[in-house]
Amino acid sequence: MNSKIVLYALGGLLRLLGILMGIPLVVAYYYEERLTPFLVAILITSLVGFLLLKYKSEGDWLLKEGFAIVALGWLAAALFGAIPFVLDGISPLNALFESMSAFTTTGSTILVDIEQHSKSILFWRCMMQWLGGMGIIVLFIAILPKLGVAGRQMFRAEAPGPTENKLKPRIRETARILWTVYLVISIVEVSALLLAGLSFYDAITHTFATMACGGFSPYGQSVAAFKSPLVEFIITFFMFVAGANFALHYRALYINKNYLLKDDEFRFYTATVLAASGLLAFLLWRDMGTDLLTAFRYALFQVVSIITTTGFATVDFNLWSDSAKMILLTLMFIGGCAGSTGGGIKVVRILLLLRHGRRELFKVLHPRAVKTIKFNGKSVPDEVVNSIVSFVVIYLLIYLSSSVILSVLGMDLITSITASIATLGNIGPGFNLVGPMGTFDPIPPLGKLVLIANMWIGRLEVYTVIILFTPEFWNR
Amino acid sequence: MNSKIVLYALGGLLRLLGILMGIPLVVAYYYEERLTPFLVAILITSLVGFLLLKYKSEGDWLLKEGFAIVALGWLAAALFGAIPFVLDGISPLNALFESMSAFTTTGSTILVDIEQHSKSILFWRCMMQWLGGMGIIVLFIAILPKLGVAGRQMFRAEAPGPTENKLKPRIRETARILWTVYLVISIVEVSALLLAGLSFYDAITHTFATMACGGFSPYGQSVAAFKSPLVEFIITFFMFVAGANFALHYRALYINKNYLLKDDEFRFYTATVLAASGLLAFLLWRDMGTDLLTAFRYALFQVVSIITTTGFATVDFNLWSDSAKMILLTLMFIGGCAGSTGGGIKVVRILLLLRHGRRELFKVLHPRAVKTIKFNGKSVPDEVVNSIVSFVVIYLLIYLSSSVILSVLGMDLITSITASIATLGNIGPGFNLVGPMGTFDPIPPLGKLVLIANMWIGRLEVYTVIILFTPEFWNR
Repeated sequence: MNSKIVLYALGGLLRLLGILMGIPLVVAYYYEERLTPFLVAILITSLVGFLLLKYKSEGDWLLKEGFAIVALGWLAAALFGAIPFVLDGISPLNALFESMSAFTTTGSTILVDIEQHSKSILFWRCMMQWLGGMGIIVLFIAILPKLGVAGRQMFRAEAPGPTENKLKPRIRETARILWTVYLVISIVEVSALLLAGLSFYDAITHTFATMACGGFSPYGQSVAAFKSPLVEFIITFFMFVAGANFALHYRALYINKNYLLKDDEFRFYTATVLAASGLLAFLLWRDMGTDLLTAFRYALFQVVSIITTTGFATVDFNLWSDSAKMILLTLMFIGGCAGSTGGGIKVVRILLLLRHGRRELFKVLHPRAVKTIKFNGKSVPDEVVNSIVSFVVIYLLIYLSSSVILSVLGMDLITSITASIATLGNIGPGFNLVGPMGTFDPIPPLGKLVLIANMWIGRLEVYTVIILFTPEFWNR
Repeated sequence: MNSKIVLYALGGLLRLLGILMGIPLVVAYYYEERLTPFLVAILITSLVGFLLLKYKSEGDWLLKEGFAIVALGWLAAALFGAIPFVLDGISPLNALFESMSAFTTTGSTILVDIEQHSKSILFWRCMMQWLGGMGIIVLFIAILPKLGVAGRQMFRAEAPGPTENKLKPRIRETARILWTVYLVISIVEVSALLLAGLSFYDAITHTFATMACGGFSPYGQSVAAFKSPLVEFIITFFMFVAGANFALHYRALYINKNYLLKDDEFRFYTATVLAASGLLAFLLWRDMGTDLLTAFRYALFQVVSIITTTGFATVDFNLWSDSAKMILLTLMFIGGCAGSTGGGIKVVRILLLLRHGRRELFKVLHPRAVKTIKFNGKSVPDEVVNSIVSFVVIYLLIYLSSSVILSVLGMDLITSITASIATLGNIGPGFNLVGPMGTFDPIPPLGKLVLIANMWIGRLEVYTVIILFTPEFWNR
């Protein structure tokens, strides 16, 4: 591997991050809060960035370099993004946890009393989510001079889901289109929230967290703080949009809106949301005595929040009946659509695995029949299915290891199994100790490190990070 | 489908079952207990058997008939095997639950006070496990006149695991060899338990439950009732043997004992047992204050009992720390080896999925490389991997549905998720309500029906049962 190229690219990324940190600095200035956390962070990040930019090298960009840049790029972003938190008095490990949780759009928090922190710090926390949502690497590709083949490979290494969002022949144009669509929809959400009566600060921070499927709120009560069904409805709608494929949104907005309705994944996603919301509403009505309309309101919000891996809450679902929790737990293993800002296994993978299962069942009775798996009317190549299978196998293996480690560290069973999926799936809250009104702070340091790794691995869809830990990666 | 052939075969199976019911009748006579439960059961079972034998038909035995015979054969065995329980005063649904749990070697019980039941009833309960262990269809094939191709197909539809135990060219010989090895090892276990001081009744019933990976004991305290580390050790050893491949045992006993040590699955199985026992012993020592030797004794027994899906207990592991429970929960998703009497997903499937994952990870860096998955030095064909994948997908889908249904019916989360895997994996006990000293009796009727279905589907490895519920099966 040509490490100079990697260091050079990381330098470019850090320089970009240093510039972006100017935005929370302006916020701090506006609210007359401490400027030091951001000034120091900008200084350190930019300095390291410029130092690394000296490594400019002539060599070729190959596969390994691409993976290393993406995986280490996210790690570097989380490390440097944590500096303002550290200067705000948060311990380094907690700061890294919060910053990784932000960039990976997870939304798990170690903050105990959220409102005690300054508005600019909480703004930065939400803004990191927004940057991570569409992807810092995609942003990098969109802004930087053309990277050629390497750009495409980096794009793939970061992009969520097995299908490629090939909107334009050149990857840089695709990256620009995706960021533009992301920006446009975000502006629409900010406007809607302003119209619903939110302050500019609340509208922006919640849009950041919604559009990224992130889930950080500057309020400990999350979206419940507004006590407004209209705000809830707006956020539900935009979470649902953010959990769908942005390449589809582009096609639906600029070409033909039928693209959305004809897409197999979008249909399955919509059907799952509706069915789960209906069942959950029934259970809340039956078990918790909530009236049906309120039950449906809570259910729809929470189902969309969990399946899109946002993790916002309008109610402490940790207090719900076990049957209601079971529905949410199931949704945690699905995740958003490919090409969305959501995390998790992804709807398309689940759908293709189900179709694979159905095909094999058919083959039991018709051993000689040749039957391909279809997606949007086209045959899915075997390699794609193989890759999905191994993705899910490695994903579940990491999930299991994480759950075992947490329980060995003394966490109870429910906390262990939900904290693991909440971080690996980039969701945010789990149940028990790590419920929506809880915090990840009491988890022991080793457990936090495991969860930080989960978030990193989950956001980069397993391979990009795991590959760095194989001996083959380091072989010449 | 030629339903006459199916009915005819079911008739043969019931006639065989009627004859086998003579054994608990003798036990009842010996202990001077009520004979009616068995007399009536023999009468009804044999009568229905003989009536069905009138359907003798000349037609061909095809794929569908084979599946129908095996799936319905097990259902019929459970239904008629439940008659003695009903006559013993158990409600019909509970009796079917107990009988399905016995035949499928699950070992989940609805009995509240086990010792209150007669020795002959408890003997029948254990004997059904032993019959189900090596498989009633395999027994049927071994005893009945040759069935040709149909025999092989039925053998496959019942046999546990994706690999075929082709010991001999003719399936009938293979079936005979397997039943002989099973019988021989069972006799060795009975002798060992007698030498360890158990009564003949205790030695036989516990051998039945051990060799079948069943886990029913005539005592509410399970194996803990004997308070004997020697008995525990003997049972641990034979559970471990029963959880391995009987075709391998045949080869190891009669050809070359290296067969076992060279087998990839057996090695992975052994390594998993040792690693899990070591970790569990450490946790029991750390969390529960058990001294290290006792901790390892408990751990080894419980790990072997759970991974082989036997479900015996020497201690109420429901009272263990959550970290210790997490280890057991993980093992519940593995199961025994292919060709063993154990249930679950099976070690070989897990192993091949892991190798599949490793291969795809390799392919990320070497996209053009051709690399096959190996098992025992041979390449595994793609169809086998595909079939394993869809097995696991359908298995987990059923698992999930069952967990959701149980929790909707009001069971707590831990009970729902463990009762589902305990029945689908043919293990027996779970945690909380359905812990090793608990009972499945409080579960509502619909929940019991779901669990009965789980046991049936799990024992016949998903496809054989599920296929009956597809429209394609009933199409002409």
